[in-house]
Amino acid sequence: MPTEHASSGSAQHHHEQHFNSSETVRDIVIGLADGLTVPFALAAGIAGVAGATANPSRLVVIAGLAEIAAGSIAMGLGGYLASRGDTEHFESERRREEREVVERPLDEEAEIYEIFEQYGVDRDHAMPVLRSLQANPKAYVDFMMRFELGLEEPAPGRALRSAWTIAVSYIVGGTIPLSPYVLFSSITTALHVSIGITLLALAVFGAIKGRMLGSPVLRSALQTVAIGGIAAAAAFELARLLNAHG
Amino acid sequence: MPTEHASSGSAQHHHEQHFNSSETVRDIVIGLADGLTVPFALAAGIAGVAGATANPSRLVVIAGLAEIAAGSIAMGLGGYLASRGDTEHFESERRREEREVVERPLDEEAEIYEIFEQYGVDRDHAMPVLRSLQANPKAYVDFMMRFELGLEEPAPGRALRSAWTIAVSYIVGGTIPLSPYVLFSSITTALHVSIGITLLALAVFGAIKGRMLGSPVLRSALQTVAIGGIAAAAAFELARLLNAHG
Repeated sequence: MPTEHASSGSAQHHHEQHFNSSETVRDIVIGLADGLTVPFALAAGIAGVAGATANPSRLVVIAGLAEIAAGSIAMGLGGYLASRGDTEHFESERRREEREVVERPLDEEAEIYEIFEQYGVDRDHAMPVLRSLQANPKAYVDFMMRFELGLEEPAPGRALRSAWTIAVSYIVGGTIPLSPYVLFSSITTALHVSIGITLLALAVFGAIKGRMLGSPVLRSALQTVAIGGIAAAAAFELARLLNAHG
Repeated sequence: MPTEHASSGSAQHHHEQHFNSSETVRDIVIGLADGLTVPFALAAGIAGVAGATANPSRLVVIAGLAEIAAGSIAMGLGGYLASRGDTEHFESERRREEREVVERPLDEEAEIYEIFEQYGVDRDHAMPVLRSLQANPKAYVDFMMRFELGLEEPAPGRALRSAWTIAVSYIVGGTIPLSPYVLFSSITTALHVSIGITLLALAVFGAIKGRMLGSPVLRSALQTVAIGGIAAAAAFELARLLNAHG
């Protein structure tokens, strides 16, 4: 799932500590949302066509666990590489700015003026800031990273933490829709219980997410339930159609 | 999959047009990466245990298509809501800044001084910038959005475009690993062909992604292949173990 807006905005009001915990919240949201939704929908889809096999619940559980393994690894490793990429990108841009401040001081001056011009600040008014920055090369580079390139330094150790957080959240999310297929021998009962507890879990998750991100709680809960419900209905109907005509 | 670093850094060197196309590339990457990986791994997992059923390839295809339906809807709608959330967050923060500039001018002054202080620019040197901004309230608000809050205005229509791009990319990615199970009646042949073409597709995709993001092409290709391979191996082995002991 693409980045949630928790990542960008509210974090920067606060301190570094809050920023990190906000990124962890974002990773939990990413993992839980897909972990609840996709295994739920897949299990419902297979449950709809597995009735003819000898042990339908077992087939749902095997396919569901295979999906959880695949999804958690794909998302966790994907998150790891994306975070690593962010860090490498930041570092290479930082080295480039460090060189440019020394080697092309006039170009950097022009860039500073350009930044301020966008906000109607002319050269005379921007010059004192430029002179201050030029007296302090580290601050100059920091300023360009943030205000020319819009880059924040990623927290150290973030990549690995992000990978584990996403993967574990996906696994936790995925066990909720699958557990009824382990507990109930009737596939119909299992499907109904799975639908009930997963929609409930999606509603609770959506409400908590809304609260943490500052969105309306009820709307957030309904949206999360709707995504899960639509995905599951589509998977269920598609599997049924294919099974009938296959 | 979490956000790729294409989104943040390189985009801001260029113009708005490039920024939009970079976000589209990011959405394609998100959809294709998971679409290639998860249905591939799930299909391999089910193929490993489906041998005992009457028509094993058919079971893989039904489960695979159900997964693609679930995954593309979950990711597409998730992307839609995340983008909508970004836009709403930006707009509500913008309204707040617009109020604060009028109602609490001294607090805003202090915030401007604080921003510059982080870069060693003292009040005397920052004041001309502040006075310029105060003479131009719209620019003042724009400046605070970007430099206090670190927020960029999301492109209009982005949410819907993002949702479709992610969903279609997921479907396109997912049809590659599944197609051999439609084309070959032998499940073993289908599994082997699926492994071959999917690893190849992951390598090509990883290489192109690396090139577009400016990462080393070979490393990017190997990483993408590794994620798909590890996810598929885990799903395959887990399904086999469960099947043997279930």
